[in-house]
Amino acid sequence: MSNVFGHNFRIMTFGESHGPALGVVIDGLPAGLKVPLSALQKDLNRRRPGQSLYTSPRREPDQAEILSGLTAEGRTNGAPLAILIRNENAQSQDYDRLSRKFRPGHADWTYFRKYGLPPQPGGGRSSGRETVARVAAGAVARLLLSPLGLSATAYTVAVGGVRAAAVDPDFAEHDPLRFADRDLAGLARQEVETALRAGDSVGSVVEVVVTGVPAGWGEPVFDKLEARLGGAFLSIGAVRAVEFGEGIALAARRGSEANDPLGPDGPLTNRHGGIQGGISTGLPVVARLYIRPTPSISLEQRSVTLSGQPTTITTHGRHDPCLAPRLAPVAEAMALISLADFHLEQSRHYIAINQSVETD
Amino acid sequence: MSNVFGHNFRIMTFGESHGPALGVVIDGLPAGLKVPLSALQKDLNRRRPGQSLYTSPRREPDQAEILSGLTAEGRTNGAPLAILIRNENAQSQDYDRLSRKFRPGHADWTYFRKYGLPPQPGGGRSSGRETVARVAAGAVARLLLSPLGLSATAYTVAVGGVRAAAVDPDFAEHDPLRFADRDLAGLARQEVETALRAGDSVGSVVEVVVTGVPAGWGEPVFDKLEARLGGAFLSIGAVRAVEFGEGIALAARRGSEANDPLGPDGPLTNRHGGIQGGISTGLPVVARLYIRPTPSISLEQRSVTLSGQPTTITTHGRHDPCLAPRLAPVAEAMALISLADFHLEQSRHYIAINQSVETD
Amino acid sequence: MSNVFGHNFRIMTFGESHGPALGVVIDGLPAGLKVPLSALQKDLNRRRPGQSLYTSPRREPDQAEILSGLTAEGRTNGAPLAILIRNENAQSQDYDRLSRKFRPGHADWTYFRKYGLPPQPGGGRSSGRETVARVAAGAVARLLLSPLGLSATAYTVAVGGVRAAAVDPDFAEHDPLRFADRDLAGLARQEVETALRAGDSVGSVVEVVVTGVPAGWGEPVFDKLEARLGGAFLSIGAVRAVEFGEGIALAARRGSEANDPLGPDGPLTNRHGGIQGGISTGLPVVARLYIRPTPSISLEQRSVTLSGQPTTITTHGRHDPCLAPRLAPVAEAMALISLADFHLEQSRHYIAINQSVETD
Amino acid sequence: MSNVFGHNFRIMTFGESHGPALGVVIDGLPAGLKVPLSALQKDLNRRRPGQSLYTSPRREPDQAEILSGLTAEGRTNGAPLAILIRNENAQSQDYDRLSRKFRPGHADWTYFRKYGLPPQPGGGRSSGRETVARVAAGAVARLLLSPLGLSATAYTVAVGGVRAAAVDPDFAEHDPLRFADRDLAGLARQEVETALRAGDSVGSVVEVVVTGVPAGWGEPVFDKLEARLGGAFLSIGAVRAVEFGEGIALAARRGSEANDPLGPDGPLTNRHGGIQGGISTGLPVVARLYIRPTPSISLEQRSVTLSGQPTTITTHGRHDPCLAPRLAPVAEAMALISLADFHLEQSRHYIAINQSVETD
Repeated sequence: MSNVFGHNFRIMTFGESHGPALGVVIDGLPAGLKVPLSALQKDLNRRRPGQSLYTSPRREPDQAEILSGLTAEGRTNGAPLAILIRNENAQSQDYDRLSRKFRPGHADWTYFRKYGLPPQPGGGRSSGRETVARVAAGAVARLLLSPLGLSATAYTVAVGGVRAAAVDPDFAEHDPLRFADRDLAGLARQEVETALRAGDSVGSVVEVVVTGVPAGWGEPVFDKLEARLGGAFLSIGAVRAVEFGEGIALAARRGSEANDPLGPDGPLTNRHGGIQGGISTGLPVVARLYIRPTPSISLEQRSVTLSGQPTTITTHGRHDPCLAPRLAPVAEAMALISLADFHLEQSRHYIAINQSVETD
Repeated sequence: MSNVFGHNFRIMTFGESHGPALGVVIDGLPAGLKVPLSALQKDLNRRRPGQSLYTSPRREPDQAEILSGLTAEGRTNGAPLAILIRNENAQSQDYDRLSRKFRPGHADWTYFRKYGLPPQPGGGRSSGRETVARVAAGAVARLLLSPLGLSATAYTVAVGGVRAAAVDPDFAEHDPLRFADRDLAGLARQEVETALRAGDSVGSVVEVVVTGVPAGWGEPVFDKLEARLGGAFLSIGAVRAVEFGEGIALAARRGSEANDPLGPDGPLTNRHGGIQGGISTGLPVVARLYIRPTPSISLEQRSVTLSGQPTTITTHGRHDPCLAPRLAPVAEAMALISLADFHLEQSRHYIAINQSVETD
Repeated sequence: MSNVFGHNFRIMTFGESHGPALGVVIDGLPAGLKVPLSALQKDLNRRRPGQSLYTSPRREPDQAEILSGLTAEGRTNGAPLAILIRNENAQSQDYDRLSRKFRPGHADWTYFRKYGLPPQPGGGRSSGRETVARVAAGAVARLLLSPLGLSATAYTVAVGGVRAAAVDPDFAEHDPLRFADRDLAGLARQEVETALRAGDSVGSVVEVVVTGVPAGWGEPVFDKLEARLGGAFLSIGAVRAVEFGEGIALAARRGSEANDPLGPDGPLTNRHGGIQGGISTGLPVVARLYIRPTPSISLEQRSVTLSGQPTTITTHGRHDPCLAPRLAPVAEAMALISLADFHLEQSRHYIAINQSVETD
Repeated sequence: MSNVFGHNFRIMTFGESHGPALGVVIDGLPAGLKVPLSALQKDLNRRRPGQSLYTSPRREPDQAEILSGLTAEGRTNGAPLAILIRNENAQSQDYDRLSRKFRPGHADWTYFRKYGLPPQPGGGRSSGRETVARVAAGAVARLLLSPLGLSATAYTVAVGGVRAAAVDPDFAEHDPLRFADRDLAGLARQEVETALRAGDSVGSVVEVVVTGVPAGWGEPVFDKLEARLGGAFLSIGAVRAVEFGEGIALAARRGSEANDPLGPDGPLTNRHGGIQGGISTGLPVVARLYIRPTPSISLEQRSVTLSGQPTTITTHGRHDPCLAPRLAPVAEAMALISLADFHLEQSRHYIAINQSVETD
């Protein structure tokens, strides 16, 4: 069930890098929600390639088409909302040269072992292009959650060795690397350019902050908020670690330095990152995604051919030297999709609520 | 569906810290698997409390009873295997004093917001005691996977400020803190004792290594191996971050320093931690869990009463000053349960396999 | 996932006819629901064996024990409710004689083909005894739904050739065959006794009526109310057909004789059996279950041995000559469990509701 | 999760009667399966409207487009297969006249109560047009199962009062009503024509037979083969009852007349309809679907307006006077989809198989 995500706000995505189209079907949407195409397009444009020196030159308009689920007035009708995005600019020839070799750091070899198929053009289903469908679904989740005052923002807090000392989300939104520290943004760009000139790529860290999550979302034991969100973030290719609140630092601290004191409205500080016992506290949910460098580099690497012969490989094609700026909108999308799922699950914790529900 | 985990090897756990019993029901087990009670008991004993100065003095025999799912010969019959563990040593009085106050760092306040209930004895369902059911299920998963040559081991690699420089799993198995570095084990114990004397607790890091995972396990997109494993680890209370392979370090590196060169049998190095494109490479799966300090400390902390009045609180009761030694077996269990789930999913990737399946 | 049922009100059952115990774990219950053991026992007693000449003489107290999920005040705490029923009166010797032969009409042969195991004592997991766990879960669902004014009743409307002309549920509740027609009840008993004397058994039909289901329950397309209820009823062993409303008769009629005219509050008649377009209309939900005769009969039948040698078999042991009286409570339980599942799903069809939910 | 069906062969369908398009995404397909568009089109054409006097005059080419999931060679790649069918001939004006009135026997009123929306053009998601996506998915399931020797056929066995005395599937395939009895086919057509002239419609019965199902498919307890198939059939609009084998007749018989004697290769007769204990016996799986008359008739009926005012209504638009001929291919599709789901689940009942699986 690899391509289905969520229980109540349930999505199924499809499509390959070089196939006819990508898309998503969303099931579980309540009726009556206004879904303007422009809202989808806005988020899709934020992850679109070809926007700067720091992202893949592949040019894709990423125009969304809504195939179902809306009334004539553009409101959800309770039926699945299907969104289609056609591929326009697939250049297989970039990949034909590679199709008989496995690219190190890519899914080529593991897919071959799993499906018995040679590397597919552009990585097929394993391509980062898959995330366009997630962003489309995330835009719908955003429309569902915004009226509740819930808002998700993601930005880059580290590029290679350059770590943000301050965070300015508004600045990040317009920075080509989505880097959050205005003063260090130039340094961050240099880090990428230097790597790029060397035919190399750099790792990065993205921070996601969700404000307005009401206290009480998330489920005990296996569906803790951090478990579902963490799984969602780790399902984004190239994310190798996920941290909530001051998670990694807390592991080296004492309890007295880790606990957040309680006030009448909940925790007074937010070391816990908005989640306690798997359930939201009402403070901002904060997570950090640790992203490996883009595996496609122009430097020569050791590899093997389909027939298992040792060889070398240098990947050209069109790639992002640093993944953070394009993964940030994807991280927002996965956060929103996961929270929309919990939102639709919120209704059944007090008998009182369930009964009131019957009154409609 | 908070208490159900897995798709094919599916478990449902139940029970509270101070209730009559805890347990798990396992659905999806193939018939014919030998399940000796002794194998379950062995793993249960590894997480049992009251084993050293460094773990809660609560004394629980944690004797497992198998209620269903076995033939007279002690082999699985294809029906659900139900395992029951009775609570023997619940001391509610420890908690009665606290039941009108919310404990900082615990789930008390969020559960109150979600379920409208005051703090339950011992934290009720949110207690670490819940993990005994996971370990029982993990022991069954181990029996299922061992014949395939698959083996999972977890040990402590950091306690407060003390980080292991070397790793010796055999030593760790007999160290009271499961600390993996023989030379630094004494220092680690000091770290805990100092905190304990100060009425405080310490954070820690557990590393899980699974060897023998065949190449090809895991699913693209949403059910990537790291997504499912990561979600499983983050569902363990107090785990605040999860890392795969050299995950966090990779985020600061270049691609040429992050990619693993390929040989005829797959990657030649294991920076990727046994997973590429969400699918196992055949190399050891390596993950690290970052664990917050035990929230229960004897130092005075700011809190509020059930009625919302500011107050102070000092938690006594029986607690582990450092969670790593008892979470390590739980981490093994969650890894084994997740992999058993993928194992049972392995059968449907080649038509050939599916057809051969019909021939029985 | 054979032993898990439901999405929101989710149950997992376990146990074999001659194993240590049977039971069920219920996940998804809202907190605050009062669950008196007496309420469970009341429904369990209604399906208990050994109550009359017309049911198996096997004597089982069927005492339920609640292992988890309740507060000290006996209210649900939002955690899984686990219910255990120990087997007391398993007489394997009745079956040892048979264990090398396959019983016609039973699951012996198909289980052998599926699991590679010889017939298990009492049929193991395939025994009707499995339904005790369904009834326990159904009793909890009843407690959840009764406050909404929802009520489920099942009774026998046909025994062999005797079909009820009138329906009196109160009479049925105290009739040994749960036969709904006071005037024909004697004839129905004769039908069973005659068959019994001939070492034979008889088929039957059970009708289930659920009143108080609000309009709007059920989901379009695959989770239509009749699809979920129908699947639930057909999951009860020996049920070979399921009909909703005047279903079978409608197939021979014209549209003008099948449609229910509409009034301001919905359909004015109930040929449709309370469901239109897969969604409840607010009128009583009416279904009929067609039940095959008990396969265990004392007459000689052709069979084969485990090794495939032709042989004959006569089944003794302890069996119900007519299944209706004991399946009726099981049918009620499956209806209630399915509707509890939809009840917990009811909250997400209007934005308004979801928002109001946030306000708690 | 109303629009998702299946666990291993998992489909999600979308689309409305008068929306831009309908479609289905199929997840879980093994890699390497050849999927020719012509095979999809063949099945789609069998349910296409406008094919005779006895089906809706609406003209739809129902041309399928495959958007994802195939290699350049037209074989599945292990990723989701997405199939799109555009609507060409939606005539909303037929429905505008009706949009302020609820049509008796339709989902208009229940959808209004559930979603708060007025009747949608053509019934929106509740239209029979939704089934085109099921048939497309069924065609893929057929491609997956045919190599195993599995074959599904459905035909009409009753139209109004005319019941087939003999069954000739080949004849049925070319009869406009798919009526299975060559001698009575003319009578069946008269039955429909008479009703049609009276502005009325007729009910019908469809029989589905699946041959080649290996023994051992299906799961005990809740996922019995008849439970999953029955739920699948009852999810088809207008199906009001489902019967397996000689189900309804068995309810009036004795055990000695109901049991199928056993031979070395399983049951020697097939009163049980290919399923015992919820698991396939290897004999043909036989089910009958009882279908209500088309609710849309030109006769005047009592109804209400959106505002609840009593009124009368006569439905014109374009409709099938008898649903059997077009539902038969849908019934085949649901049977094949359900069985494909079990097929992909077949691999995990013997340790031996699971281990062999690892060897690839």
